[in-house]
Amino acid sequence: MTPIRFPNHAPITAFDRAGAELEVGGVPLVRLAARVGRTPFYACSREAISARVGDLRKALPAAVRLHYAMKANPMPAVVAHLVGLTDGIDVASAREMHVALDVGADSRHMSFAGPGKTAGEISQAIAAGVAINLESEGQYEAALEAAAALGIAPRLAIRINPAFELKSSGMQMGGGPKPFGIDEDRVPALMARMRADGIVPVGLHIYSGSQNLNPEAIIEAQRNSVQLGIRFAAQLSDGFEWLNIGGGFGVPYFPGEAPLDVTRIGEALAPLCDEAAQHGTGPLVLELGRHLVAEAGVYVTRVIDRKVSRDRTYLVVDGGLHHNLAASGNFGQVLRKNYPVAVGNRLDAETTEVQTVVGPLCTPLDLLADRMELARAEVGDLVVVFMAGAYGPSASPTRFLSHPEPGEVLV
Amino acid sequence: MTPIRFPNHAPITAFDRAGAELEVGGVPLVRLAARVGRTPFYACSREAISARVGDLRKALPAAVRLHYAMKANPMPAVVAHLVGLTDGIDVASAREMHVALDVGADSRHMSFAGPGKTAGEISQAIAAGVAINLESEGQYEAALEAAAALGIAPRLAIRINPAFELKSSGMQMGGGPKPFGIDEDRVPALMARMRADGIVPVGLHIYSGSQNLNPEAIIEAQRNSVQLGIRFAAQLSDGFEWLNIGGGFGVPYFPGEAPLDVTRIGEALAPLCDEAAQHGTGPLVLELGRHLVAEAGVYVTRVIDRKVSRDRTYLVVDGGLHHNLAASGNFGQVLRKNYPVAVGNRLDAETTEVQTVVGPLCTPLDLLADRMELARAEVGDLVVVFMAGAYGPSASPTRFLSHPEPGEVLV
Repeated sequence: MTPIRFPNHAPITAFDRAGAELEVGGVPLVRLAARVGRTPFYACSREAISARVGDLRKALPAAVRLHYAMKANPMPAVVAHLVGLTDGIDVASAREMHVALDVGADSRHMSFAGPGKTAGEISQAIAAGVAINLESEGQYEAALEAAAALGIAPRLAIRINPAFELKSSGMQMGGGPKPFGIDEDRVPALMARMRADGIVPVGLHIYSGSQNLNPEAIIEAQRNSVQLGIRFAAQLSDGFEWLNIGGGFGVPYFPGEAPLDVTRIGEALAPLCDEAAQHGTGPLVLELGRHLVAEAGVYVTRVIDRKVSRDRTYLVVDGGLHHNLAASGNFGQVLRKNYPVAVGNRLDAETTEVQTVVGPLCTPLDLLADRMELARAEVGDLVVVFMAGAYGPSASPTRFLSHPEPGEVLV
Repeated sequence: MTPIRFPNHAPITAFDRAGAELEVGGVPLVRLAARVGRTPFYACSREAISARVGDLRKALPAAVRLHYAMKANPMPAVVAHLVGLTDGIDVASAREMHVALDVGADSRHMSFAGPGKTAGEISQAIAAGVAINLESEGQYEAALEAAAALGIAPRLAIRINPAFELKSSGMQMGGGPKPFGIDEDRVPALMARMRADGIVPVGLHIYSGSQNLNPEAIIEAQRNSVQLGIRFAAQLSDGFEWLNIGGGFGVPYFPGEAPLDVTRIGEALAPLCDEAAQHGTGPLVLELGRHLVAEAGVYVTRVIDRKVSRDRTYLVVDGGLHHNLAASGNFGQVLRKNYPVAVGNRLDAETTEVQTVVGPLCTPLDLLADRMELARAEVGDLVVVFMAGAYGPSASPTRFLSHPEPGEVLV
């Protein structure tokens, strides 16, 4: 594949092109838009997802189990594809669990995380045979109650809020006071209580952060997680079934960012796998969401107006922040930066121009590209936002101003 | 009504209380939750909306026409209530237009704004007899085409991107290059073109910003808007039907903010109304969204877990950023601040505690109250986020992590 290059963003390598057009899963963009029947839409490439999983398998030790955290992209077709490629599915709500089971995920290789599980959700997970990552003593009590009512032995894992932090992470999820998991120093008491109740925890879950592009920080957190797992495995006669050391693998969204060096991480993981295996932690599970799907997806919009205001040229497109909140820079970002954006049917254009891409909403927040050098676009052209395969429609206010929902297609 | 007081936020005056309980529209909160049948939910008070409109009518000159910008809260029942209280409805999408027409809004007092109207939306507005605020020359051409195809005379207004700015605004929507409206200096050419085409613009739309709490800044923008309207009205023999001078009236969300002094604005508007009337602008239209509904709504969640992590106490509730993105601080805010939050069934509590309220989502962004002094809450209690009547579910990623949608009720 010929990478699509940008002046400041990492090149996009997940897609081919057919002449001037981007190809998604072998279908040229204009044809794909016609097939979907409308713009805007999200398109994800099966091939790109498979390639990403293949690259990871090559880089990581064979003993590592790769899970898909489906919150990144819960489209049933995407989940079904990843059920076939990965070793398990991790869910963050009852509805996610139902989608995964419907597309054929094996409940024995599923876990359910979330700091606010309701009694109903806990009961559904136990009935499904899905492991529950306990995030508090309260959740343990709720699980015991539901299991007793159902007469089913629950599969319970313990999510630990570790004392260490994942450095350089987009989001800190461990270290200090946190709503996630049970503080490291309270885990022995919970394990003693479980032992008294005749329950053997199936595993541990240690998730310390996300969207990290620094391999050394990830390696350090993995090393700490394995040490923690070994310490608690020693309290059990047969050890755990598995040790989930989280994910946190980032992707390059913004100017100046480079792809994560997963080979480096794989090399450092190899001795950790051996050490863990010798100490009864069970196989290490890596739980990846964004890293598996983000680069495999695009958000496709159509130019509906081209206008000049004072010294600036605007492309007004039919999609925007209501579909892709993250690309608009309004989802928890402090400083707005452009995602990689291109005119998807003019990839070979020689005439470029600085253009600002805005959506149809009555708010200055609805901005998809701020003064980017793009192929000169006209009404009808297709503006593509890359890095759109994760946290797209499900992480956007799709009902904002009551505009239509985006289409969604896996090609 | 006894205001609900906070250490740092403006008091909440829109609701009464029944003993320890918040009352919404005369219904105590616990009973209301039982009636809705689930948490989390949004509840809006008819009475509070009516009171707000009544206060505005008292403060503003009688000649001012009050419109509701329904994007703030598009719940059909809320729109229906405001159709009965206001002089017109302004919409931002075709779907909003359909909802307004369905609940009985009069198309002669409706306008449709938005920088990215599709040909289909323009055609629907013309067929409905709704005025289109033209945001570009391209939209004018699309409107002419749709009108010719339908054989219906279009009602067209011109949205102006003014050269002046609305100072101290939460969001700048005028001044400098903008995707909204037609630059002030290009309006005469468009009006000449319309004259040649035999089309008389029905009005002007000048919307320079939103969420402003500084009356002097609003007054200055209104004065500038009226001057601009007078200048362009002079180019027509019979003047305009109306001059929409926008809205921008803010509400106090955060610690230290005080309600807007609308009396001061009304006093300054009176002479402007007279001047405008003498110069053919037609009646002044004030287009308010957030200001009419924000304070009339609450977001109600239930505590499902109470946990301590290191030195911090967390209340884990069943709602969060997926329903109320703005209150979580992740919708375009640079610095997160707490909304006013209370334990809605313990308003008379004497024991308070510093507690952090988080939602059920697996992300540190899911935060509803960061270390606030609240009544000591237990599992089952109802945590209420105030100032939730505008830009609630419709401005939130309700499908995030596939958690259930919020309920919605107008009481």
